Amino acid sequence: MRSHAAIALLCLLGACERTAEAPAAPAPVASNIPAQPEGLSPSIPDILAASQPEEWRPLNPENTLYMDLPQKDGTVGRVVIELAPDFAPNHVANVKALAREGYFANGAITRVQDNYVVQWAQAADPERLPKVGQKTLKAEFTRPRDTTIGFDVLPDPDTYAPEVGFSNGFPAARDDTSMWLTHCYGTVGVGRDNDPDSGGGTELYAIIGQSPRGLDRNITVLGRVVQGMELLSSLPRGTGDLGFYTSPDQYHRYTTIRVVADVPVAERTNLEILRTDSESFAKLVNSRRWRKDAFYHVPQGRIGLCNINVPTRPIQ
Amino acid sequence: MRSHAAIALLCLLGACERTAEAPAAPAPVASNIPAQPEGLSPSIPDILAASQPEEWRPLNPENTLYMDLPQKDGTVGRVVIELAPDFAPNHVANVKALAREGYFANGAITRVQDNYVVQWAQAADPERLPKVGQKTLKAEFTRPRDTTIGFDVLPDPDTYAPEVGFSNGFPAARDDTSMWLTHCYGTVGVGRDNDPDSGGGTELYAIIGQSPRGLDRNITVLGRVVQGMELLSSLPRGTGDLGFYTSPDQYHRYTTIRVVADVPVAERTNLEILRTDSESFAKLVNSRRWRKDAFYHVPQGRIGLCNINVPTRPIQ
Repeated sequence: MRSHAAIALLCLLGACERTAEAPAAPAPVASNIPAQPEGLSPSIPDILAASQPEEWRPLNPENTLYMDLPQKDGTVGRVVIELAPDFAPNHVANVKALAREGYFANGAITRVQDNYVVQWAQAADPERLPKVGQKTLKAEFTRPRDTTIGFDVLPDPDTYAPEVGFSNGFPAARDDTSMWLTHCYGTVGVGRDNDPDSGGGTELYAIIGQSPRGLDRNITVLGRVVQGMELLSSLPRGTGDLGFYTSPDQYHRYTTIRVVADVPVAERTNLEILRTDSESFAKLVNSRRWRKDAFYHVPQGRIGLCNINVPTRPIQ
Repeated sequence: MRSHAAIALLCLLGACERTAEAPAAPAPVASNIPAQPEGLSPSIPDILAASQPEEWRPLNPENTLYMDLPQKDGTVGRVVIELAPDFAPNHVANVKALAREGYFANGAITRVQDNYVVQWAQAADPERLPKVGQKTLKAEFTRPRDTTIGFDVLPDPDTYAPEVGFSNGFPAARDDTSMWLTHCYGTVGVGRDNDPDSGGGTELYAIIGQSPRGLDRNITVLGRVVQGMELLSSLPRGTGDLGFYTSPDQYHRYTTIRVVADVPVAERTNLEILRTDSESFAKLVNSRRWRKDAFYHVPQGRIGLCNINVPTRPIQ
């Protein structure tokens, strides 16, 4: 192992091309990737048009949050977050308790770090303690591997984890003993201090750039944004350390964060998600993996976990 | 192969956990990744503070562009783009010729598609033909593998390519016969129509989201943004198809695009880039790969090509 490491370091230092002995990096193993289909790839609209109603599932109002964000033009934008109680049951329950006690009322987005995260908090008084919910909880960075929890394997090689896939719509990874949600675009996690158990959900963040997979298993992930990402990703970047805004007048206020079950039916955004264990989703993944159409001439034959967008649509 | 493909499809359909026979996805091969260092990871500021002056290189004014973007507050933001003549010599020469004939004067950003690209053009009259430069060129999607062009191998597994690394600061990939630049955050490429040879540089784009590596080898990449990404990534998303703005009054005008060699010295933004064949860059990569510090408790032991930011700093 030591000698391999030394060779790899040489490669990084530019010596690979100068020494005949240095090995090339290994080609990823991908023996169980579906073979290239014949002809051109079907388009996503065509795949979705051919999908069956039972391949879609509505969001569960008890496990969905709205963050309503007033816009400059006077309208109110809505960020819809699906929660993942299978992976962070205590944090999900706590964030719902915080929402229900009104903890998030008149909060704000306080941090926008380019190519990384948007983070929000109870900005009016960040030190205010919750009355019903908890300020901190024991970390839920991973959970034990459990075969009763859906996990649809993506056979394509992943840089970071031995196995990746989708768990009921959430991009996820696992090893022999554990499962965890991964940091892809739109992933929502729990801000914390250095102590693993210092987060609880009073501060949350969403990923707005290249998937920072180094955070996986280092932070509690509790959901993902299923609609409204563009409201977060297009905010001006903060100029302070780590992208924090330097003054409260730069904050972006949200009116509140609510559990959808508490929102009057007439005010809800009713969405359904293509099931990631459906045949149509498998077709979609393979069409992107082997994408070949009028524009794409060279199919990759591979697809990355964080390059797959799970379709969401209004319920008709 | 067929049977493997059938099994993988079953996995994608959720059957992996329901059948004892289905294999797990393969663990990526990573035998030549440097071993985990002892102790905590050095910070990037500490690594850079210890770097040597000869580990940095200035941008070459002949291979750098400025796009100056007036901001709402009256200031002018600057996007700095380093060009890659090793990979797209004809397109780089053409974009420089276009800049020098004034083709880009009073152009605009016409498209911002969330988690994908910002694209700009000569918006006042998109059909106007260049006088000196060319409207279209033969595609430069890849180039022949050439051992005289720097390529510092990243030994970590990559989803899309058999071998990845950095070529003089640019994230890149190669196989036995070809080399190409990869689509990471900040990569700049050449817009085109369906015909591979229909682009020339009159329309360019920059990647603002999760690396869309499916574009690799399907489009000509000619450089990357080394400063000013946040000016592009924070623009409002277009609401038309593919994120195009639906009306010219939504466009974001830039004053012009210039080759830095043509810019008076006093008006230049003088930057230097950490050489990706330097020992300090190798240290930086390994510190992120095995990141373990006050906040990060679980090192991944892997790092993705597009998760590595090449340091840029003002020349003192």
